[in-house]
Amino acid sequence: MNVTVHGRTRHFRTVTFDAPRNAVRLIEQRLLPHRFQVVSALNFRETARAIQDMVVRGAGAIGATAAYGLAQGARAFRGRDLPKFLRHVEKVCDTLKAARPTAVDPFNAMKFVRQAMRPGQTVEEQQALALAAAEEFAEEDVRHCEDIGRHGAKLIRNGMNILTHCNAGWLAFVDVGSATAPLYAAQAQGRKFHVYCDETRPRSQGATLTAWELAQQEISHLVIADNAAGHLMQRGKVDLVIVGSDRTLGRTGEVANKIGTYTKAVLARRHGIPFYVAIPLSSIDWNLRSGFDIPIEERHESEVLGAWGVVQPSTLQQRLPTTLPRLQRRAYVRVANPTSGALNPGFDVTPAELITGIITPLGILKPHQLRACL
Amino acid sequence: MNVTVHGRTRHFRTVTFDAPRNAVRLIEQRLLPHRFQVVSALNFRETARAIQDMVVRGAGAIGATAAYGLAQGARAFRGRDLPKFLRHVEKVCDTLKAARPTAVDPFNAMKFVRQAMRPGQTVEEQQALALAAAEEFAEEDVRHCEDIGRHGAKLIRNGMNILTHCNAGWLAFVDVGSATAPLYAAQAQGRKFHVYCDETRPRSQGATLTAWELAQQEISHLVIADNAAGHLMQRGKVDLVIVGSDRTLGRTGEVANKIGTYTKAVLARRHGIPFYVAIPLSSIDWNLRSGFDIPIEERHESEVLGAWGVVQPSTLQQRLPTTLPRLQRRAYVRVANPTSGALNPGFDVTPAELITGIITPLGILKPHQLRACL
Repeated sequence: MNVTVHGRTRHFRTVTFDAPRNAVRLIEQRLLPHRFQVVSALNFRETARAIQDMVVRGAGAIGATAAYGLAQGARAFRGRDLPKFLRHVEKVCDTLKAARPTAVDPFNAMKFVRQAMRPGQTVEEQQALALAAAEEFAEEDVRHCEDIGRHGAKLIRNGMNILTHCNAGWLAFVDVGSATAPLYAAQAQGRKFHVYCDETRPRSQGATLTAWELAQQEISHLVIADNAAGHLMQRGKVDLVIVGSDRTLGRTGEVANKIGTYTKAVLARRHGIPFYVAIPLSSIDWNLRSGFDIPIEERHESEVLGAWGVVQPSTLQQRLPTTLPRLQRRAYVRVANPTSGALNPGFDVTPAELITGIITPLGILKPHQLRACL
Repeated sequence: MNVTVHGRTRHFRTVTFDAPRNAVRLIEQRLLPHRFQVVSALNFRETARAIQDMVVRGAGAIGATAAYGLAQGARAFRGRDLPKFLRHVEKVCDTLKAARPTAVDPFNAMKFVRQAMRPGQTVEEQQALALAAAEEFAEEDVRHCEDIGRHGAKLIRNGMNILTHCNAGWLAFVDVGSATAPLYAAQAQGRKFHVYCDETRPRSQGATLTAWELAQQEISHLVIADNAAGHLMQRGKVDLVIVGSDRTLGRTGEVANKIGTYTKAVLARRHGIPFYVAIPLSSIDWNLRSGFDIPIEERHESEVLGAWGVVQPSTLQQRLPTTLPRLQRRAYVRVANPTSGALNPGFDVTPAELITGIITPLGILKPHQLRACL
């Protein structure tokens, strides 16, 4: 999507491939929203490290990064010995897989690339097929998000107030995003609307990433405390909720997503506000039979007990040079009582009955209709 | 309640009067939870400034502070000229009132003290009556909170998990608190239970003040993100919710309280969890006829866009001496995207139908029974 750097607006993708330099180009997401920078991973090990160190995050984005990383690793092989090449490719895959072992997207992406390579008779042919497959994988991610946008945009009317939670934006995919896709598509169709971004404690992805995306795209928006959504709904200030999903159960229509999503769904139901979940098909889990079987990651308590941000020197008694670049003033502050602990579940599960519809690349489905995608 | 300073546990009140020095003694709440310190306001102007600058906050606490401040100002008068004395008292009242013009508690507290002074025939008599009345006012605040505790403790059974929101603790009153009173009373009766403190963004009074109170009182507790309450309820980990209230409508039973309270009430209803509001009678508003008439303060957006906390030097690239006392490392960090704004409603309104009961000094009432208190 669009990013304005030094007054110039250009289109960027989260991840692209620089074929002449055999480099994976990534938006350095750890610097956002404070600085926009594109970095190059010059070999597959650097690409794996970028996944591991969260330079790139989000299901679609790390899938495409792994696909490109595999092509990158394959293309770096020198020689014509096919068995040796295949052993090398194996090693590349293992390295990339180990970078984020619990994520399913890199795994699926690399499976796709390896299958596409198979018909190649020579090392060179397989290398070419790997890159073509990685590009295809990335293009498909974009196309699916665009399809989500096309279907979801129909829900957005002029003057609407839309609530989002966390970040399921283009930064989490190759481009366009899932929950944000309907917003960008509606904007492209000339519709005017307003977005409330839940800040999404404890990691504040709404306040940092979604707000940054919407600001870059010049979509009217305001950040709110997670506590404020109920009040806004009560006062008639929310017309539609759209969120993403980390895992959606195909069998039941239950949706696992960032902690707090369930609360918004309960509030939306109380107020008769439509609640939509936007997902690519790749995030559907066809195995689990109940949302209670989804493991809920308990994250470190420090996330709840404090916050990361840019220190405002004027508020600190101790002198800190005000001329320091913002990023060098980034720090963690402890907010909570120093002798208290915290509980930090990272995700929650929203039951199908609270979900108005699931916006997929195939169209808007009722949760129980997901089986049709199988 | 109890505070442990340098390993010694002592009982403190939020505000007390030091008659020999004619000083109002206050817990410096702006330093909590990072440092516990009691400060003296040596004349009524300093007392007014302490109210204004939020050294002391919370309805009951600023009421008692104003009562003591009025007695302090009256006692500082030298001479026997009664009309001149009364003009001086008028000035003291005006100064104290102006410190927090929208709060009703200082106003009521001073009205109480002035009525008690009236029978005094001389300056000296009126001065003595003023101090006695201020002490009585503070004692009554404590007694009412203790009564709330006595009634509310009946709701707490061994092994319960209790959710609280914001801080309606003893720091907001002279002692004991409202929403915390049942906890302290149940603890005194030997019951064991666990408390989840909503961090209560954007100002984090749950993570800072309530967590500090519970830690000092050695009550088992954990801080959670406001987003996590729904998930915990869904998984059966919350048995009871108790919150305070800034204003409760006597005519309708509607409760205005810190933003996010309404959301917890909606969630509690969905899960069949009892939702109680603990209030002193002084916070009942007998005039308004609808919760929609309660003005909802919109606070500054910076509260939502960032957080106050203690900078952890190891997380800051720029060097900050690690030996600095914690309080000197306290600062505001900007968390959100720098080009985004925020909407920051400070309170919300919970309808009577979501409230299981209102814990008052007179007993636990159904919201519609409040009229009985009139």
